[in-house]
Amino acid sequence: MTPDEFRRYGYALVDYIAGYRAGIADLPVWSTIQPGELRAALPSAPPTEAEPFAALLADLDRLIAPGLSHVQHPRFFGYFPANAHLASVLGDLLSSGWGQLGLNWASSPALTELEELMTDWMRQMLGLSAAWRGVIQDTASTSTLVALLCARERASGHSQVRGGLQAEPAPLLVYTSSQSHSSVEKAALLAGFGRENVRLVDLDANYAMRPDHLAQLIAADLEAGRRPCAVVATVGTTATTAIDPISDIATICAEYGLWLHVDTALAGSAMILPECRWMWQGVEGADSIVLNPHKWLGAVFDCSLFYVRDSDHLVRVMSTNPSYLRTAADGQVTNYRDWGLPLGRRFRALKLWFLIRLEGVAGLQARLRRDLENAQWLASQIETATDWHILAPVHLQTICVRHTPPSLSAAEVDQHTLRWVDQINTSGAAFVTPAMLDGHWMVRISIGALTTEREDVAALWSLMREAVA
Amino acid sequence: MTPDEFRRYGYALVDYIAGYRAGIADLPVWSTIQPGELRAALPSAPPTEAEPFAALLADLDRLIAPGLSHVQHPRFFGYFPANAHLASVLGDLLSSGWGQLGLNWASSPALTELEELMTDWMRQMLGLSAAWRGVIQDTASTSTLVALLCARERASGHSQVRGGLQAEPAPLLVYTSSQSHSSVEKAALLAGFGRENVRLVDLDANYAMRPDHLAQLIAADLEAGRRPCAVVATVGTTATTAIDPISDIATICAEYGLWLHVDTALAGSAMILPECRWMWQGVEGADSIVLNPHKWLGAVFDCSLFYVRDSDHLVRVMSTNPSYLRTAADGQVTNYRDWGLPLGRRFRALKLWFLIRLEGVAGLQARLRRDLENAQWLASQIETATDWHILAPVHLQTICVRHTPPSLSAAEVDQHTLRWVDQINTSGAAFVTPAMLDGHWMVRISIGALTTEREDVAALWSLMREAVA
Repeated sequence: MTPDEFRRYGYALVDYIAGYRAGIADLPVWSTIQPGELRAALPSAPPTEAEPFAALLADLDRLIAPGLSHVQHPRFFGYFPANAHLASVLGDLLSSGWGQLGLNWASSPALTELEELMTDWMRQMLGLSAAWRGVIQDTASTSTLVALLCARERASGHSQVRGGLQAEPAPLLVYTSSQSHSSVEKAALLAGFGRENVRLVDLDANYAMRPDHLAQLIAADLEAGRRPCAVVATVGTTATTAIDPISDIATICAEYGLWLHVDTALAGSAMILPECRWMWQGVEGADSIVLNPHKWLGAVFDCSLFYVRDSDHLVRVMSTNPSYLRTAADGQVTNYRDWGLPLGRRFRALKLWFLIRLEGVAGLQARLRRDLENAQWLASQIETATDWHILAPVHLQTICVRHTPPSLSAAEVDQHTLRWVDQINTSGAAFVTPAMLDGHWMVRISIGALTTEREDVAALWSLMREAVA
Repeated sequence: MTPDEFRRYGYALVDYIAGYRAGIADLPVWSTIQPGELRAALPSAPPTEAEPFAALLADLDRLIAPGLSHVQHPRFFGYFPANAHLASVLGDLLSSGWGQLGLNWASSPALTELEELMTDWMRQMLGLSAAWRGVIQDTASTSTLVALLCARERASGHSQVRGGLQAEPAPLLVYTSSQSHSSVEKAALLAGFGRENVRLVDLDANYAMRPDHLAQLIAADLEAGRRPCAVVATVGTTATTAIDPISDIATICAEYGLWLHVDTALAGSAMILPECRWMWQGVEGADSIVLNPHKWLGAVFDCSLFYVRDSDHLVRVMSTNPSYLRTAADGQVTNYRDWGLPLGRRFRALKLWFLIRLEGVAGLQARLRRDLENAQWLASQIETATDWHILAPVHLQTICVRHTPPSLSAAEVDQHTLRWVDQINTSGAAFVTPAMLDGHWMVRISIGALTTEREDVAALWSLMREAVA
């Protein structure tokens, strides 16, 4: 493909994407194709000869589009806002077009230095002190795994350069709550701790971790000769956006020398609003933090920020230094290959740079405040409606609800819940997520798609009332 | 940003990228800016108010471009071909523009099913049997970590759901060679094996792993009560593209029940050429394979293919199944979140789909054959030149050379090598990579950038001779 062909096809694809975004509100939110339907419609073997671009473009709407679920839709209220802001789409296009390869600083000084700067811009926007240094990882799952590897190596005196975890004399333990994200247990298992060494701390009435129970568990484990290693606390849990009390937890971690990792994958974006920062009060006492600008903030996936206070320790755990990657600049620069799992790295800072410059901090703040207000508005509607219940504090943009007609048993409410949520989701008019809370089904309404306005939230509320009628 | 604004800015950025690619041959290959130079030129704090797109665009050439090292340049011969083919750039643009989010099959059926299909197209192109199933990971580092986690859990009877690696009664061992990629040791350390439990198998004269020594090491470890777990073999090592004898190694792995992971991150692309498949003869006896289409093949970074024969085992090691991700389709579909570390996934199959359709298999094969021929041509030039030596068999597109004037001692040759390679690299006329082999410096010439033609290789050869004159 020549640059001139790229220009022609690129224009056509930009047009296609602009049209997709302009018309998205008219599409059913969620795909209704059947498993295997798309695959069956596509050739099972690759083409020997090159095909024209027009053939590919024609296949997008004809074959692929029916298999898309539209998380960019204004009436997408599922999971979490997964915003791919068009400004960041442009930044990511430039990343692909330049085709830079981050292996070491010298292989793309711009890639490294803009990542240093963007993680520092974000640090300032979040109100974190200058003690933190950041890196872009792909997802919170990876960031949390890296955090637990750092914790493991700190607690074991860097066992990986000796006999590894398998030579440790007594088990290292990880503490979290049952409301933490599935990636926390996954990370602990992959890091070799073992499920038996993951302790679930009790919850308070708002689904937040109880620091007093954490302290009890730690004391009991120490008494038994086991070795507490790390705590993973969450600001904005997945199910209900509950807020673990970071300040109290950090005090306990400091007392016992435990690594404190704060998972604020979703809620972290809200920390660009000073009025929200009470939610992670005490965060300066943590060792690592993860937050995902690829969620609510709008950086196109993947863009997970991982901050640490002791970057030297992180580098010691993650570093490799083969001869073919050594350069004269090594002592003076950041080599991000030693800050995470992958060696090669994409120029991901561009999507943050485009997003922040083209929106401005004030613009990003205004959008998040709009979403918080929409959530409060909907919560107020639900609170005053008969048989509707809000199940957890609405601190952010997520509302957990049940509709409980008094005539129904708990089991019947479960069926009723799955029925009305299914009615909304299969209608294509909106999408919300069913989830378990206290052993029963409820519905999470997550507000914050880029184009979600009050009228979209009001429309969802109408759909909900119709669905239970 | 409205869709109309995106259209306007998108056109401008497509123009910018087309211009960058059209003019790249006239740029110095490698950046010469100093550490910290770019960062100092950029505002240290984020802008409060939105800036116009034109201001951002103007900064690209003015501020960022000097900090780029151009791996897409026709005279880039460093590391490995890191090709971002413009067809795949378009596919990746569509991925960003659609903003799909792969959490489970239902959240984007197209994302999942096209990934199934593209990994199967690639499987067919590589000549692998239908026993293999594939997934796209970010890099070979991650794929190899996943492979060793699978190996660890198979050998330990799934210890992670009990006490983890730390409860194992005797150490599990990983075998590889000193020529394997740095990511192999890194993966073993992160997976908790410990450096003392990574065995380096001896090399033959061509830097390939010696199966007889592998068998000896395994027997000795078993005798001592240790537990051999996995072998990581390489087809196309980083330094010299050496070829570990997969068939013999697979036989040994089968005998002792060890997991065999084949790292063919670079060379795997060449397996689309039937005449190259002797290089991984016996690969059907492996348990997992990694190869990176984001290298030579041309898919824009990141796109690492990870194939396994027992995908059920992979899923058992990697799976999470929280309530909020469950859907009615779960039993019938692939949920790629359970095939790797991240939960959320990008629509990466699009860049392969665009690349394969717009180039055709025949087009991809023709380009790789061009590169292989260019490597053979350069090797023949070097072989017949006075005081130049090729240090390892040229199976692929990488040539390892030294220039050794007879008057120089070994230590002086090291200095001489670093001097002449530095002269080429700082000239901006080409870029090659110095690396250590047998304790001394040599130079790797890696051919295969998309636009590298015979004249570029000839120009490099002239530069080399001038640099040592």
